[in-house]
Amino acid sequence: MDLSSDIPRLDAERIIQDLNNRYAECLDDDRIEEWPEHFTQDGIYKIHPRENYVLGLEGYWLYFDSAKMMRDRVLSLREANIYNIHVDRHIITNIRIATSQQGIYTARANYVVLQTNNEGKTIIFSTGEYMDKVVFIDGTAKFKERVVIPDTYLAISLIAVPL
Amino acid sequence: MDLSSDIPRLDAERIIQDLNNRYAECLDDDRIEEWPEHFTQDGIYKIHPRENYVLGLEGYWLYFDSAKMMRDRVLSLREANIYNIHVDRHIITNIRIATSQQGIYTARANYVVLQTNNEGKTIIFSTGEYMDKVVFIDGTAKFKERVVIPDTYLAISLIAVPL
Amino acid sequence: MDLSSDIPRLDAERIIQDLNNRYAECLDDDRIEEWPEHFTQDGIYKIHPRENYVLGLEGYWLYFDSAKMMRDRVLSLREANIYNIHVDRHIITNIRIATSQQGIYTARANYVVLQTNNEGKTIIFSTGEYMDKVVFIDGTAKFKERVVIPDTYLAISLIAVPL
Repeated sequence: MDLSSDIPRLDAERIIQDLNNRYAECLDDDRIEEWPEHFTQDGIYKIHPRENYVLGLEGYWLYFDSAKMMRDRVLSLREANIYNIHVDRHIITNIRIATSQQGIYTARANYVVLQTNNEGKTIIFSTGEYMDKVVFIDGTAKFKERVVIPDTYLAISLIAVPL
Repeated sequence: MDLSSDIPRLDAERIIQDLNNRYAECLDDDRIEEWPEHFTQDGIYKIHPRENYVLGLEGYWLYFDSAKMMRDRVLSLREANIYNIHVDRHIITNIRIATSQQGIYTARANYVVLQTNNEGKTIIFSTGEYMDKVVFIDGTAKFKERVVIPDTYLAISLIAVPL
Repeated sequence: MDLSSDIPRLDAERIIQDLNNRYAECLDDDRIEEWPEHFTQDGIYKIHPRENYVLGLEGYWLYFDSAKMMRDRVLSLREANIYNIHVDRHIITNIRIATSQQGIYTARANYVVLQTNNEGKTIIFSTGEYMDKVVFIDGTAKFKERVVIPDTYLAISLIAVPL
């Protein structure tokens, strides 16, 4: 088997998997203060439901265009939600790089977020796709853009914590 | 930690994960015309429900023994199903190579397909296992055989799109 | 992209993924006699439900502190459960190493176990996290400790087979 041509892409996918793992860990551990750190300062985070995405409509559920906006969001979440009444569990798989140009990796991944309530009952909270632009800042991978495209319909009020 | 003996097998597993990722992407993106391209020309695709598989019975839900048959299937799917009323999401994990002999890799993987209907409701459509024979044609990994062994019982009429 | 500093950690994560894959395969294949072989002789296996874990309470659902205890458990399972009435399917993702010291790798992973009954109906049986200590014995990765921290509440009597 000749791996030589694929290894650089597969190695880059491992780094992006690693970024996803750290991203998921801080959310699942309820250390959401660390969530904005996975983005560049001018990073974009959007939740774009699939029904709007496929029709070319904007209609985002969430839209932040800087790490500062994300930090503000985290602060308000902490004030509004005194008790952590759910546990989230991110399953992130099928990482694949579509293109890499001028230091920007365009990548996709599939996700499932399972949510367990305080009675220990688990549901599929959301499944869908991440569409990302990843860059390296001082040797560390960061999201320049993360667009979450949920397949699952959610009432927006339910999205307390980022997907 | 001495990785030297395991690295070739783990690298081959990455290539097979990559084949799975491309396979899943075309199905989840509803680009099913590309699905047969992941097989050799004489490739086999079977869905063999676990209850039959463990008893040694044939009883396949689907059985194609060439890429041509798969292409015919795709054409008829496109005619019969004008609207894409579901979104599928493949989660493919736990890739492991059992044997490699004469250029044929025998591998297994676990899968879950989550299906979301046009009201945005998500269910576990099918979970189970892939049992594969993978070969390299002109440097590209292809399925010489993919046997899907679902744990989940499905009415055969529900399997519009390949698992 | 400069991978040089991350590659050794990512390679170690691949080895731990591989250990998880073999662990899951023997459980999903109902070859539970092989389950204790993934632990060191003095290995620890605990199921520590999240509600107790976060409060710092002991309250384990299962607690074995040697491979011998695990083998005894397997024998009694085989006597008590003549028929295999469920199929389990482990989805193990998001492997990440927190620390490595003196040959002991501290690692975490997310898991989902899907269970299908003999009518072919699939449910989310348990989701949660593995917190592991992994060592190498004669070149093979083994669990020195595996703590399963389920998010999902389960009646203890339902946990016939290890998670």
